[in-house]
Amino acid sequence: MESRTHAADATPGDTVTVAGWVHEIRDLGGIAFLIVRDSSGKIQVKFEKDEMDDDLVETGLDVQRESVVTVTGAVEEEERAPTGVEIVPDEIEVLSAADPELPLDPSGKVDAELPTRLDNRTLDLRKEEVKAIFEIRAEILRSVREAFRSLGCTEINTPKIVATGTEGGTELFPITYFGREAFMNQSPQLFKQLMVGSGLERVFEIGPIFRAEEHNTPRHLNEATSIDFESAFIDESGAMDACEEVVVSAYEGVAENCQEELEALGLAEEFTVPERDFPRLTYQEAIERINATGELDEQLVWGDDLPTEGERALGDDVGQHYFITEWPSEIKPFYIKDNEDDDELSTGFDMMHPSMELVSGGQREHRYDHLVEGFEQQGLDPEQFDYYTKMFKYGMPPHAGWGLGGERLVMTMLGLDNIREAVLFPRDRQRLSP
Amino acid sequence: MESRTHAADATPGDTVTVAGWVHEIRDLGGIAFLIVRDSSGKIQVKFEKDEMDDDLVETGLDVQRESVVTVTGAVEEEERAPTGVEIVPDEIEVLSAADPELPLDPSGKVDAELPTRLDNRTLDLRKEEVKAIFEIRAEILRSVREAFRSLGCTEINTPKIVATGTEGGTELFPITYFGREAFMNQSPQLFKQLMVGSGLERVFEIGPIFRAEEHNTPRHLNEATSIDFESAFIDESGAMDACEEVVVSAYEGVAENCQEELEALGLAEEFTVPERDFPRLTYQEAIERINATGELDEQLVWGDDLPTEGERALGDDVGQHYFITEWPSEIKPFYIKDNEDDDELSTGFDMMHPSMELVSGGQREHRYDHLVEGFEQQGLDPEQFDYYTKMFKYGMPPHAGWGLGGERLVMTMLGLDNIREAVLFPRDRQRLSP
Repeated sequence: MESRTHAADATPGDTVTVAGWVHEIRDLGGIAFLIVRDSSGKIQVKFEKDEMDDDLVETGLDVQRESVVTVTGAVEEEERAPTGVEIVPDEIEVLSAADPELPLDPSGKVDAELPTRLDNRTLDLRKEEVKAIFEIRAEILRSVREAFRSLGCTEINTPKIVATGTEGGTELFPITYFGREAFMNQSPQLFKQLMVGSGLERVFEIGPIFRAEEHNTPRHLNEATSIDFESAFIDESGAMDACEEVVVSAYEGVAENCQEELEALGLAEEFTVPERDFPRLTYQEAIERINATGELDEQLVWGDDLPTEGERALGDDVGQHYFITEWPSEIKPFYIKDNEDDDELSTGFDMMHPSMELVSGGQREHRYDHLVEGFEQQGLDPEQFDYYTKMFKYGMPPHAGWGLGGERLVMTMLGLDNIREAVLFPRDRQRLSP
Repeated sequence: MESRTHAADATPGDTVTVAGWVHEIRDLGGIAFLIVRDSSGKIQVKFEKDEMDDDLVETGLDVQRESVVTVTGAVEEEERAPTGVEIVPDEIEVLSAADPELPLDPSGKVDAELPTRLDNRTLDLRKEEVKAIFEIRAEILRSVREAFRSLGCTEINTPKIVATGTEGGTELFPITYFGREAFMNQSPQLFKQLMVGSGLERVFEIGPIFRAEEHNTPRHLNEATSIDFESAFIDESGAMDACEEVVVSAYEGVAENCQEELEALGLAEEFTVPERDFPRLTYQEAIERINATGELDEQLVWGDDLPTEGERALGDDVGQHYFITEWPSEIKPFYIKDNEDDDELSTGFDMMHPSMELVSGGQREHRYDHLVEGFEQQGLDPEQFDYYTKMFKYGMPPHAGWGLGGERLVMTMLGLDNIREAVLFPRDRQRLSP
């Protein structure tokens, strides 16, 4: 497919052509060096001005940083070079000359604020530690899919343009669809449920979700990647087992395949794969433990949602990934089943990283009558959701599942300060481009 | 995670609990059978009315088809049973009773039109041959991703909400984004190009694309799955190599891992993996060969787009996957680079299945000045695309890539008549739900 040699593969004795970006130019007078960078690493190119063709030296040393070049020449050992080898060039070609004024310094010597970085992602991702985040993100998706397959799941793709939102008309982006009102889907919830009632039984989807929420925080996005699981014939406990398996597999994949990237991020030593069997606290225990930390001004009472500071206090206290189970029914959505013995309690659960919520799931209401009732209680018109509810009349099995925030998984795994760092081109209230 | 036994795993001598759908009920008088179906297959349950508990017999035989049940009992050999074994039940529980009137017959004995099938996908996917399509679709995605990784690609996710479309304002779905006008993206083209200029160099994305085209044909969708590839430092020929590799890998994955599904579709015998080295015809050769078939009323001349009948005639003539290269520059978009020696010719290519176009690609214009000129020639305002063009000033390498229609790959591989059969919940001008 291509004839170039990657910088990292240049072996003394070979004559190679390397293609990449001019990372640095060091002119020491009689001798000068170009450092050329490609996706594999960097390599030094040596110019001995008096011994080389003038045109060659001129081309090599007139080039601006971040220009794209190919360099052809012999590879020699040189212990003073950063990688122990250097190229003595016979030929250099400038494929794409860069402006001398860069909006962002990819060498990282000049710090840049996040908005500048996001405006110039192409340059930003030339930094090793930024590139590492997205290599790790790709590995997370790979190992998550593999875990799903080992759990017997079939990958599905559900529509992103929908007639009705999962939880009604709030927080939806409206779209004009051939003259009709439609929305961008906020969750594959209803569609993945329709599939567990089909011959597929157990499914996963990784895809974009869209939420028109107005909050602007370091941990919310208006377009995010949702990792969804749903299975027939399991209850919330089985869904939690699957959740644990998938999240731990993501860590294992990164530990196994991303050591270089972890090093670039300064995380190689501290990175640990979470142990399986995450603690499972009930909601009741959770609010008691939060109250006991004394971190909140007001004590939580039954029925309260957990405030961010409460989640953080509890996370510090637990010190690892954990589940919160048996939430009050009234604060969980209609499609979550109530506990069989006590309808004040739901089968809903959240899976928490010590610093924030990652997953929301539960056993689903599979009984047609209860489901329609739930729509009404939530103030939704069940007729609008007829395409969904009617399938519950034709043999919908008991089922359970969850949704995991892809960017939150990346963010918490790598300790990023802002969720936007885990997305190439984030979308928030202000940011619509690039 | 669950304690049930799959139907296919029921072994004589064991006592099992099987969970699934009542596929068929056969009452022969003194003896009766339930056929229970789950994702693994089917199993017979035997009721000997005089020898069994009345309640058990009543529950078992009163159940409606497609209800969800669990059956617990001993597995016995029975050569007259469809799978050679049957369950003698001790207990049967109806988990979800189905209405006696089904909108669609999952046993497939009654044919259903495609709209009815799409309205009732849950029931439709209980049919072995429909389920098989989506198991194969999942395997195609798996093997395509594996091929991309073997080519050294990093998986990326680019935004689906965008400020400007790839090719301007036509054929875009408008969306209201916090009071501003935005669009659903019709292609990751511009974003994947921005990434080959970053440290990632070679990327792929599999995700939804949205096209507001008004045509309503058996091979167009308004929401589709695009399989995208883009790489620095390769030309159109390298991009075609990668395209071939990915498409052949998809066939190989299916041949290796989906024999059962191919059998369910009646394709096991005829299914063949295409040979590598697809023929590469120039556009000039293509129109000559189409003209020579005599299938068109009017002869094609240089500059014409290939009409559907022309593609079909050529496909019949070539008889395998093939590329069409060296298209006239004027009918390819601005981001496709012209041929270096002849600017009437472009580096754009299409990859064709004998029955239709699957892939469109080419080497990209990486030179800032030419790119801006191209926008203007296409009647687009380059300033609107500043977030994209400006990155070409800071070291954009030569690069090439392509986009492959995911559903078209499934459709052509399996010989489906309508592209909607390759999507769980298709979106077209009429269809917005389920």
